[in-house]
Amino acid sequence: MSLFVQKFGGSSVADAACMQRVAQRVYDTRMEGHDLVVVLSAMGKTTDNLIALARQVNAQPSEREMDMLLATGEQVSVAILAMALHALGAEAVSLTGPQAGIATDSAHSKAKITGIQPDRIRTQLAQGRIVIVCGFQGLTPTADIATLGRGGSDTTAVALAAALQADRCQIFTDVDGIYTADPRVVSQAGKLDEIAYDEMLELASLGAKVLQSRSVEFAKKYGVELEVLTSFDRRPGTIVKEEVREMEHIVVRGVAADKNQAKVTIQHVPDRPGVAATLFKELAAANINVDMIVQNVSEKGQTDISFTVPRDEVNRTRTTVDSLIETIGAAGAQYDVDIAKVSIVGVGMRSHSGVAFRMFDALSSDKINVEMISTSEIKISVVIRSAYADQAVNVLHAAFELDRVNEPA
Amino acid sequence: MSLFVQKFGGSSVADAACMQRVAQRVYDTRMEGHDLVVVLSAMGKTTDNLIALARQVNAQPSEREMDMLLATGEQVSVAILAMALHALGAEAVSLTGPQAGIATDSAHSKAKITGIQPDRIRTQLAQGRIVIVCGFQGLTPTADIATLGRGGSDTTAVALAAALQADRCQIFTDVDGIYTADPRVVSQAGKLDEIAYDEMLELASLGAKVLQSRSVEFAKKYGVELEVLTSFDRRPGTIVKEEVREMEHIVVRGVAADKNQAKVTIQHVPDRPGVAATLFKELAAANINVDMIVQNVSEKGQTDISFTVPRDEVNRTRTTVDSLIETIGAAGAQYDVDIAKVSIVGVGMRSHSGVAFRMFDALSSDKINVEMISTSEIKISVVIRSAYADQAVNVLHAAFELDRVNEPA
Repeated sequence: MSLFVQKFGGSSVADAACMQRVAQRVYDTRMEGHDLVVVLSAMGKTTDNLIALARQVNAQPSEREMDMLLATGEQVSVAILAMALHALGAEAVSLTGPQAGIATDSAHSKAKITGIQPDRIRTQLAQGRIVIVCGFQGLTPTADIATLGRGGSDTTAVALAAALQADRCQIFTDVDGIYTADPRVVSQAGKLDEIAYDEMLELASLGAKVLQSRSVEFAKKYGVELEVLTSFDRRPGTIVKEEVREMEHIVVRGVAADKNQAKVTIQHVPDRPGVAATLFKELAAANINVDMIVQNVSEKGQTDISFTVPRDEVNRTRTTVDSLIETIGAAGAQYDVDIAKVSIVGVGMRSHSGVAFRMFDALSSDKINVEMISTSEIKISVVIRSAYADQAVNVLHAAFELDRVNEPA
Repeated sequence: MSLFVQKFGGSSVADAACMQRVAQRVYDTRMEGHDLVVVLSAMGKTTDNLIALARQVNAQPSEREMDMLLATGEQVSVAILAMALHALGAEAVSLTGPQAGIATDSAHSKAKITGIQPDRIRTQLAQGRIVIVCGFQGLTPTADIATLGRGGSDTTAVALAAALQADRCQIFTDVDGIYTADPRVVSQAGKLDEIAYDEMLELASLGAKVLQSRSVEFAKKYGVELEVLTSFDRRPGTIVKEEVREMEHIVVRGVAADKNQAKVTIQHVPDRPGVAATLFKELAAANINVDMIVQNVSEKGQTDISFTVPRDEVNRTRTTVDSLIETIGAAGAQYDVDIAKVSIVGVGMRSHSGVAFRMFDALSSDKINVEMISTSEIKISVVIRSAYADQAVNVLHAAFELDRVNEPA
């Protein structure tokens, strides 16, 4: 007897009919002989409707009360799924996050799970019940309800799988797995059979929106094997797991483009200690999410500093940067929203040299100019004109033979 | 500094605009210097919508899961009111029933409050906050969420007022108080300044739907002074309180008609011990709510037994009674749905004789025939043809001078 944690969210739980399909899926897994904990998000537009209701009485509702409000969405879901499972003849019981023993810190609307006391879940499992738990929520040290913020239901599922030492944590989503590239952009994109946690983390932060970074970090930390799959058919999905030696045969596992970026260049910055520190301290204070940072070698005691920010933070960035130009003695700043960040990711890069060369060579063969470069151990990102983003992804997908990524080495 | 418990339900909390009006009312009470605990029902059609959703996945949802589902309705209400109060600049915090320390038994969908640990409410009050509590719900001994059943939010308010030794419990409803008769029937009907618990209990069970019997019983048991008033204007309502000597000056406090009744007459029942017991035991087993029972004196060893039941239980009653006719040796049974029960209520009856005579005299002067009579210490009920119900209420209202009921004796 193995224990599975299954998480259903988004369009999988849109309405009563969807809930019945989820119930059938859960029931079938149970009939295969597995113990089951199911984690659910709120149904359909519930969360959006509750937010709209709140805004009618308060333009800036308190986060503590917002959590109280939004937590009801998942509570409706778990009760409805329990009823749907009962209708199939299954034993099932629903639990709120607090009832399931999920403790969080007090950071309302973006709380972190601090611990799980799964006694009640274990007792119910031992009585042969399917246990259905509200995702996205837990209880603070002051016994208030807190939500985990966006993507929080994935984190709930992973945390429960870790606490219960589950054999697998299945994340059911709108897509059937992790792809080598966005299939809408690259027709040859293929679904990956497996991917390393670190690769998934790089892809998640690069805009492949399947799994939330935090849930992958959690899974990595506690060694929880994830499977990303769809609830709309019965095909296997993509396993996200600890890196194994065989994974290194694949140099690049995926290509991703992030078009929601803007580039800021500060020109002729005096090349003396503390200037960059001043700049990025102020940007951090303004809550601006700086991503890539590039500083060229100094010429005549001056240098250009470039960095990227999310496109919708450009105006706030401009306010901060323009106020600093004089202080730091720079010549001025340029803001460019017509860029895209294109990245290749793979743990195999660590042991294979020449990956960067192959990337730049492929892009230049297609006359795509690289404006910024940033690398990590398992990722290379470049900034290019946004008009070439899709073309670049296709070129790189072909150059690294990603259409053959699942073939045995 | 006095402590008020205020309960808002029904159309007072129908939508966001209503919630803002409730917030203003609560805020004004707070500004008058009172500590405040507010109890809310679910907004508008929330409960009906949740029930409809449940029925889509299960024709007979489990009561435990139904409670899990329905409890979200009040949770939405309390969060929204807290936000609306914040928008007015007030300090306020919302609590679920379990968070408020409300313990219930395990009878899901119709749980009874078994105790309240109001420590958390007290702490929040001491910090100057308005405390908003979900009505209708509490936590069972197994830490499950239970609902109190219909009218449960009133009970929550009264129980909290008792536990907190509040100075007053104000129940805001669609009407502005308790009337001497239904104002739609009697144009001279007047709002009562005050009414005794026992009178209110008789009127509640007689179909004056303002307060649920259970909450009045609870108020009586714990000596909680209730005020029934409307949230739509600022006039004082009706105080429901312990009977005081002055109340006895008023012989009759109100007249009520219940047209949702049917009369069953079993003819020529052998007048021997055990027959009535057999009959009413079977009716109880069939969950039929028998109200008035009248048995005439015996003639020639036979008697007629008449009783009333709610009109929508006539068919079930017929099934039970017809199957017993032969067993008990009766001649047959008649079912009459064209009746109404008209009642007068007043604690003053205890000390004033001739009340029944005045009632029957007034009715007979108007040629209204009395078919059944039933009396308690503070109530006299008669069964008449339903066509005369409104006329009878008017006649009795005038006969007992109820248009002058608030005048000092």
